[in-house]
Amino acid sequence: MKQVNGVDIEKLSETMNAIRGNPDIAKFNFRATNKWLGGGHNRTTINEFDGACSMHNRAISFVIDEDEPPVLLGQDQGANPVEYALTALAGCLTTSLVYHASAMGIKIDEVESTLEGNLDIRGFLGLSEGIRNGYNGIQVAFKIKSDAPKEQLQELVDIAKKRSPVFDIVSNPTPISVRLDN
Amino acid sequence: MKQVNGVDIEKLSETMNAIRGNPDIAKFNFRATNKWLGGGHNRTTINEFDGACSMHNRAISFVIDEDEPPVLLGQDQGANPVEYALTALAGCLTTSLVYHASAMGIKIDEVESTLEGNLDIRGFLGLSEGIRNGYNGIQVAFKIKSDAPKEQLQELVDIAKKRSPVFDIVSNPTPISVRLDN
Repeated sequence: MKQVNGVDIEKLSETMNAIRGNPDIAKFNFRATNKWLGGGHNRTTINEFDGACSMHNRAISFVIDEDEPPVLLGQDQGANPVEYALTALAGCLTTSLVYHASAMGIKIDEVESTLEGNLDIRGFLGLSEGIRNGYNGIQVAFKIKSDAPKEQLQELVDIAKKRSPVFDIVSNPTPISVRLDN
Repeated sequence: MKQVNGVDIEKLSETMNAIRGNPDIAKFNFRATNKWLGGGHNRTTINEFDGACSMHNRAISFVIDEDEPPVLLGQDQGANPVEYALTALAGCLTTSLVYHASAMGIKIDEVESTLEGNLDIRGFLGLSEGIRNGYNGIQVAFKIKSDAPKEQLQELVDIAKKRSPVFDIVSNPTPISVRLDN
């Protein structure tokens, strides 16, 4: 097993070759279930998914609590949903950066990022129709430790933006259907 | 304190009146920091935020691990970033539904939702330029227990879509700037 940055690049290369032979291997279906626990508190459970032409079950489900802080009428029993949106974006940009660095043979020592987003809750509250409900913008700042030259690290940041699934989900329209199954 | 569905509707009403008097109270800035831990594993920390004209610190930070499953070259040390995107959406639609139900005086007994999203990793891998990196679509299904008539529950689902910040972030373009601070 040959690893770069903790990523098995032989398996990565094999996966890419397998997908070139059979594009169905690239198809994934991810899932979540959520249960309301009262007020702003709810709990998401993540486990199985479909991908690479088979179903995958984790040994233990991931259980994720979400709540609002007191100023937003919650009790801080978890980060809030818009903070989880930043979490998803941070993790995805980082993984995209590291995996592509690994594929390119660039050794990375450390990656840190800080994210922030501005949101005006008049949208959520329905107090002003001209104001959007979500973030009006998200700023991400990376710090990367590596022996690679700065131009190459900037290139990796650009590749992360170009390839990250969550960057795409947030920055471009993603169709969502919502139905009531009562 | 008058609560409906665990939401303090007196405080909600006071907040809305305060915002009508001073729209700056509606402005929030949420933050996250992320640190890469090797391979597909990274950790997001959430704590302080600005909102309602002051800075807020939680007593304990929320620490959120993200990883990939083995089929995506990780070790399952946390849900993956696109699963956190579903988590954010699930929590936000649920909270939007419950808060607006509370404001309307509609009592809710249970809310459950299931989410799924399809994603073709040829986008992430750069194997096919015609395929998007993120979800090509997300399906959300709600089940709600309440004495309210089904038409009113459908109306609540529609309000959740109309008001949810994360629904907006995912379904509409959200500008993201990414910089390298080396």
